[in-house]
Amino acid sequence: MQAANRPSEDDLIARYFAPMAGEGGLLLKDDAARLTPPEGHDLVLTADALVAGGHFFPDDPATSIGRKALGVNMSDLAAKGATPLGFLLTLALPDDWAPDWLAGFAEGLREAAAAYRCPLLGGDTVAARGPLVLSITAIGAVPAGRMVHRFTARGGDRVCVTGTIGDAALGLALRRQPGGAWAAGLPLNHRVYLTDRYLHPRPRLALAAILRDHATAAMDVSDGLAGDLAKMARAGGLSAEIDTALIPFSPAGRSAMGADERLRDLMITGGDDYEILCAVPDARLAAFLDATAAAGVPATVIGSMVEGDGLPVFRDAGLERRYTRGSFSHF
Amino acid sequence: MQAANRPSEDDLIARYFAPMAGEGGLLLKDDAARLTPPEGHDLVLTADALVAGGHFFPDDPATSIGRKALGVNMSDLAAKGATPLGFLLTLALPDDWAPDWLAGFAEGLREAAAAYRCPLLGGDTVAARGPLVLSITAIGAVPAGRMVHRFTARGGDRVCVTGTIGDAALGLALRRQPGGAWAAGLPLNHRVYLTDRYLHPRPRLALAAILRDHATAAMDVSDGLAGDLAKMARAGGLSAEIDTALIPFSPAGRSAMGADERLRDLMITGGDDYEILCAVPDARLAAFLDATAAAGVPATVIGSMVEGDGLPVFRDAGLERRYTRGSFSHF
Repeated sequence: MQAANRPSEDDLIARYFAPMAGEGGLLLKDDAARLTPPEGHDLVLTADALVAGGHFFPDDPATSIGRKALGVNMSDLAAKGATPLGFLLTLALPDDWAPDWLAGFAEGLREAAAAYRCPLLGGDTVAARGPLVLSITAIGAVPAGRMVHRFTARGGDRVCVTGTIGDAALGLALRRQPGGAWAAGLPLNHRVYLTDRYLHPRPRLALAAILRDHATAAMDVSDGLAGDLAKMARAGGLSAEIDTALIPFSPAGRSAMGADERLRDLMITGGDDYEILCAVPDARLAAFLDATAAAGVPATVIGSMVEGDGLPVFRDAGLERRYTRGSFSHF
Repeated sequence: MQAANRPSEDDLIARYFAPMAGEGGLLLKDDAARLTPPEGHDLVLTADALVAGGHFFPDDPATSIGRKALGVNMSDLAAKGATPLGFLLTLALPDDWAPDWLAGFAEGLREAAAAYRCPLLGGDTVAARGPLVLSITAIGAVPAGRMVHRFTARGGDRVCVTGTIGDAALGLALRRQPGGAWAAGLPLNHRVYLTDRYLHPRPRLALAAILRDHATAAMDVSDGLAGDLAKMARAGGLSAEIDTALIPFSPAGRSAMGADERLRDLMITGGDDYEILCAVPDARLAAFLDATAAAGVPATVIGSMVEGDGLPVFRDAGLERRYTRGSFSHF
C-alpha cells in the first residue's frame, strides 16, 4: 500500500512511461494493450529480467540501464530475424527508489524505444524490499514461417559472428576492478570503449532480414561465445569446430590481451556481447557476407558446425580447447 | 554466476517449465517464442509483477502462488474480451530458493496453464538477493477491433459486477490476523471460503465474448471495487453512482460484516477480487444478464455511470460516501 507522500503508480505512468507509449499502448490508459499484428506475419516474443547488482551495478548511469534493458531484448529479436513491434515492462522498485534514478532510467528507455521503433505497450510497477528487478517482454514480427531458429543449423554450415567478441566482458572486469594489473596500462580511449560496450548493447536489428535470407540458425551472443555456441550446437544435435585465431577482437580487446594473454578465455566465455552468432551454408556465405557488409555490420567466419555431440572445439596453434564452463549465466 | 552445486537455468527449464510449454514455445528450445496470431484478430497484452511479501506470503502454498500468478493475468484478458493464447514468465529467485517450492509453484502454474488453455511460451530465470519477484506477460486474442476498453463507458450505462465483492480482502485480513475479533466467531467453512478466494482467483474467461457483445467498457476488479470504478469513471470522463445495498456480498462476507459492520469499507476498497466490473447500456442489460446467467457467472447491477468528474458516490440509507483512498495499490 502506498505511503501518502509517495507518487502513485498512475503518477509514475503519467510522468515517466506515457511519453514512450505507442498507439497500441493506448497511451497506457487501458489496463491492457492492443496490438494489431501485421498481416502474413508470425510474432516473435522474448522476455528478459535484469536485477540490480547482478545484471548492472546500482550506480551505473540510470539512462544506460534503461537503454540496455530494451537493447538486450532487441538483440534477441534481431537474431530471430524479427522487426520490433513493442514491449511491456514490469518494474519492482525498492523502497528507497529515487525520482532522479527513475527519470534517468525512463529517459534511456525512451531513447532506446525511439531508436528501435519499439514503443511501450504496457506494464506494471510494484514495490519490493530488495534490489530493483525489471522485466521486459518484447514482441517482434517476421514474415510467416520465417523465424530464424536456434536449433536448425546443419553439419558443414559455417559459423559466423558479427562485430567483436569479449569487449563487454572486459568492460565488466574494468568496472569491477578498475585498478587491475592489465587495466592499468590500457589507454583511456580503450577503457572508454570497453566500458561503453558493457553498458550499451548495439542490437543488430539491421541484420534481421539478412539472417532470414541466408542463415540456417542464429542466436544472439549474450552469455558468452563459447557457451552460446555450445547451446546452438546442442540444440541442433551437432558440435562445432572453431579456429580461435579467426575470432574477431577489437583493438581495445587485443591491447588488453597483449597485457595479459589469459584474458582471451574471459573474452570467449564472458557475457553481454549482444552480437549475432549464426550458421550459414557454404552456398550462401558470399551473399551473406556481402549483405552484412552492405548493412555496415562486419561479420566473420570463425569455424564450422560439424556432426557430433560434444562441446565445440576451439583450435589455436595446435592446441584444442573445450570450454566446459563456457557460459556466463546470469542465473 | 551459478554455483557448481546449483542447477543451471537449462536444468530448471527442463525440469519445471518445459512441461507447460506450448507449441509456440518451441518446447523452450529456442531463445524466443513464435506465435502465429489467429487471422482477423487483434492481440491483447497484459503484464503483472508479483513480489513475495507484497502480493503473496512467502509461506502461502507454492501451488497457490503459481495458480494465482497466471490467474490474475487471465482476469485482465477476460475483462478485455480476450481469449488466452499464451504467456511468458520471468522469475527472480532468491539465493535460498528451495527445489520443493519451485516444484510446487510450477505445478500450480501448469494446472492453471492447462485450465485456461494458455501455454508457456518463454521466459527468463535470474538470481536476486531479495524477495522472489515473478512477472508474467499474457497474450490473448479478440476479433479485430473488438477489444473492450476501460475508457469507453457512457453516461447512463448501468454499472455491473460479477460474483461477490470483498471476499479476498477478508481472506487477506484473516491471513494477517487470524485471531482478530471479527474472525474469532466466523464458522470454519466461511474462513476456508474467504482464504480460498484470496489464494485462488477465478478469472471470468467465460464472460469474454459476452462482454464484447454487450459492455461499453470493462476492467477486472483487482485493486478494490471503489478504486477500480473510480479509474473506469475517470478514464471515460465520467463519474458513477452506486447503491451500496446492491453490491453483491457472499454469505461469508455478510457473516463477517455481521460481526463488525466496519468491514464493509474494507470489502469495497480491498483488492484481489478478480471479478469483472463493466458498463452496460440499458438496451443491452437484459441480454447481458441472461447471457451471464447462462454462462453460470452471476452478475449484479449496482448503479450507473453518470456525467461529471468527481469520485463515484456510494449511497447507503441516505448517506453518501466517496472513497478517497478507494484503491488498494500493490505499489
